[in-house]
Amino acid sequence: MSHLRALIAGLLLVAAASAHAAPDPARTAADTWRAGHETAILSEFTDFLAMPDVATTIPDVERNADHLMDLLRARGFVTRILSAGAGTPPTVYAELKTPGARRTVLYYAHYDGQPVGQRGWASPPFTPVMRTGPLGQGASIVDWRAAPTPLDPAWRLYARASGDDKASIEALLTAVDALRAKGIKPSVNIKLFYEGEEEQGSPHLGAIIDANAALLKTDLIIMGDGPMHQSGRQQVNFGSRGVIGLTLTVYGALRPLHDGHYGSWAPSPAVEIAHLIAALRQENGEIGIPGFYDDVRPPTASETAALAALPPVEAGLARDLGIAAPITDQRLDDSYFRPTLNVRSIHVGDSGPNAANAIATTAEASLDFRIVPDETPDRVRTLFSAGLTTLGWFVVDAPPDLATRLAHPRIVRVSWDPGGSAAVKTDMDGPASRAVTDTISREQGAPVLKVPMVGASSGLDVIVRGLRAPMVGVSIANFDDNQHAENENLRLGALWDGIGVYAALLSELDW
Amino acid sequence: MSHLRALIAGLLLVAAASAHAAPDPARTAADTWRAGHETAILSEFTDFLAMPDVATTIPDVERNADHLMDLLRARGFVTRILSAGAGTPPTVYAELKTPGARRTVLYYAHYDGQPVGQRGWASPPFTPVMRTGPLGQGASIVDWRAAPTPLDPAWRLYARASGDDKASIEALLTAVDALRAKGIKPSVNIKLFYEGEEEQGSPHLGAIIDANAALLKTDLIIMGDGPMHQSGRQQVNFGSRGVIGLTLTVYGALRPLHDGHYGSWAPSPAVEIAHLIAALRQENGEIGIPGFYDDVRPPTASETAALAALPPVEAGLARDLGIAAPITDQRLDDSYFRPTLNVRSIHVGDSGPNAANAIATTAEASLDFRIVPDETPDRVRTLFSAGLTTLGWFVVDAPPDLATRLAHPRIVRVSWDPGGSAAVKTDMDGPASRAVTDTISREQGAPVLKVPMVGASSGLDVIVRGLRAPMVGVSIANFDDNQHAENENLRLGALWDGIGVYAALLSELDW
Repeated sequence: MSHLRALIAGLLLVAAASAHAAPDPARTAADTWRAGHETAILSEFTDFLAMPDVATTIPDVERNADHLMDLLRARGFVTRILSAGAGTPPTVYAELKTPGARRTVLYYAHYDGQPVGQRGWASPPFTPVMRTGPLGQGASIVDWRAAPTPLDPAWRLYARASGDDKASIEALLTAVDALRAKGIKPSVNIKLFYEGEEEQGSPHLGAIIDANAALLKTDLIIMGDGPMHQSGRQQVNFGSRGVIGLTLTVYGALRPLHDGHYGSWAPSPAVEIAHLIAALRQENGEIGIPGFYDDVRPPTASETAALAALPPVEAGLARDLGIAAPITDQRLDDSYFRPTLNVRSIHVGDSGPNAANAIATTAEASLDFRIVPDETPDRVRTLFSAGLTTLGWFVVDAPPDLATRLAHPRIVRVSWDPGGSAAVKTDMDGPASRAVTDTISREQGAPVLKVPMVGASSGLDVIVRGLRAPMVGVSIANFDDNQHAENENLRLGALWDGIGVYAALLSELDW
Repeated sequence: MSHLRALIAGLLLVAAASAHAAPDPARTAADTWRAGHETAILSEFTDFLAMPDVATTIPDVERNADHLMDLLRARGFVTRILSAGAGTPPTVYAELKTPGARRTVLYYAHYDGQPVGQRGWASPPFTPVMRTGPLGQGASIVDWRAAPTPLDPAWRLYARASGDDKASIEALLTAVDALRAKGIKPSVNIKLFYEGEEEQGSPHLGAIIDANAALLKTDLIIMGDGPMHQSGRQQVNFGSRGVIGLTLTVYGALRPLHDGHYGSWAPSPAVEIAHLIAALRQENGEIGIPGFYDDVRPPTASETAALAALPPVEAGLARDLGIAAPITDQRLDDSYFRPTLNVRSIHVGDSGPNAANAIATTAEASLDFRIVPDETPDRVRTLFSAGLTTLGWFVVDAPPDLATRLAHPRIVRVSWDPGGSAAVKTDMDGPASRAVTDTISREQGAPVLKVPMVGASSGLDVIVRGLRAPMVGVSIANFDDNQHAENENLRLGALWDGIGVYAALLSELDW
């Protein structure tokens, strides 16, 4: 789509929104139901959030899956577990057939959460706590069960997975209740695919998709994971970056050494890994691996136009985050069209009360790449290893033996995380894409933001390739939800708005 | 002293050693006593090593001090505690007057040990365990109490402080027993100064010295801390570097951020600290702080000659440590005449099962400088802060507030460790220095190695300045004792030899 066509489409949406000054019926149904059931909705949601859901503990995710199946069956869904075998996290599948429907829409979300070992949780991650606002801004804990409704939509519910990604599941469940209360039928056949190991990199997703391709057949995938636009406005996205993680280990002497005796003479893994990381990534984000940008596909004219139309958020965001200056002049959304190298962690030596004047034997850093069309995980792995060699490192995939240590002054072990995904990209101008943006714009009473690609990853390249269906992302969590970190939280108003969005999608989306 | 004079002095020592082909009487006394009491000596030593002695826990070091006083009083020493006040680690002082002696010698050692939180202890740090050799070389645990004597001198006793620095205390105690058994009298007045917080940077040492200067008055300080030469030969040293530690904290956004959404846009403390460390120190050890080498005093001709006379250890050491190449072409002992910047630790983000695809809010690195004559801790602090500013950092000494964060893109907090010390340097050719080298050379039956300066630090600049006495270092622990790290150990033969060295010093040293 040309810039001009995009502009015209935008104007038409504004016109459409104005014409629909009368409230959208699904939105009305959602608002009415929610207003009468705020405490009950939160009660159901907090029960769900109170269940530990880190997928490294299989019994925990199994309990979540059982609980979720109960919630779905109570609403008339036919449910089943999709499994890649014993000892793997279950995927919850659910279906609601709509007689006479021409289309099928599959909703994707994940019920597992990020690990919770971060320092600094103000309350335990699986003890949902309501606060009157964001932590550190004078917010206090409030007893929502005893509070009169309507509750303040600025309140925030703190718990692991509150934003990422149980919020979208709870919004859909409540939307079903709201529609049913008003006798509003779904517009299409509904399929739900609720994954249980997304935060572990979805290692079994491909196997599950392959084994159930006929069952999962769909005309569109709506992906509920991820936060809203930083402007606070509802957005639809048409792609996400891929992700691939790894751990680097750098080796020094076989024994820890007293740094007084050996600090001027023996290699220092701490210093080596600092130089290695500095060579791999500039402070401005530029990746120092030869050829790393060769495969990057630039945005189309249509995508460029959509990017230009996004409201500016950078200055406010920087102020809010206490950042004097971002590392780049690029707009935030523009930056997603380039790969990112993030250093998740560096650990060398002991600190605090165990700090010693010693040279550690190894240094470890955990990295992840966010990759874009048309990069692939395999190609990234190859380029990265070749880049390390170019930088003067001897690359190994297991701890080096003595002969290797004595033969090579700079040795780095590369351990790739399991999984890894390519980027996913859907045509913004396809019929299903347009149906989604039109539906949500109508529900919102204003044009929804069209985001060509989000910076995060869903690992859903496997679904898109496996089901050969377009995918759009509809996120409802507040952007500042601390997802993937301590004190994850969901703004109450974001959940309330999300119920309306899902009600409209379930009952009005068609094409 | 000119190179020629040093050479002549060395030749004279060789001649002297040859002339004393008959065993030194103190050495004979030590060997005889030890041969008859190996199990009893180790029993006393392991009881001492079994006492936790990390000086961050005051009751632990107090128990050590009480125990040590008992051991000394049993041998006829008059003892007392020197304290800098309640809640500070006690120094054990002891005295043994020698009627008619012209000289007084003060022996320094410390009974506290490094922190023990390092991963990888093969046995608990305060449960002394004897092994048949170094860990990881097929050594097995052996029950020395039940073993027939003589025990194998290649056995190693594993425990915190076994080498650093309780070994030198046990060697002196046993030497006293050995001399007494043979009726050999001390040659001078003996004073013992056993510190209890050396591994914490000796924050109260200056106060204790100042308050007890008359009590501690001495003609010579013999410092028992530190390991022997890597060649395995007995050495006397005439100086040590100073040390000064600090913690750097680099700040990113106020909240942890999802790296998919913000990795291309928000500053990364992990990347920032890598670049900062890389700027501060090259891989070859060169320190990148402007003016840092300006105050460095080069070795004298006499020191240069002594350095040249030291046996080469570098190639064997590199092989033993699994190092393909040291970071410098300098000899190990030569390198001690230049300051070292060591990176003790770097910690950013979570790793392992808690790893998250997040941008951490802060990154922390712990550093220490080993400094040489004529650098001073104050000057290093000034140069370091100025260097950070030159490198583009805004330096703070407390966590930055929001206004500071918004005003400065690169903020680093510098927290200096308490204490810190200048280097100590004694004239190798002074009368007391020569008396020590002559005595030990006679005891050993071979010229002792003269090390102009060791790489480690003792914090004893305070003593040398306070007592205005020369100081020489006499170390007995094996060089590969893992001091300051996990699996610290003492080679049994090193302890046995050390008893002889102390017996000779106690009974023959005079000038």
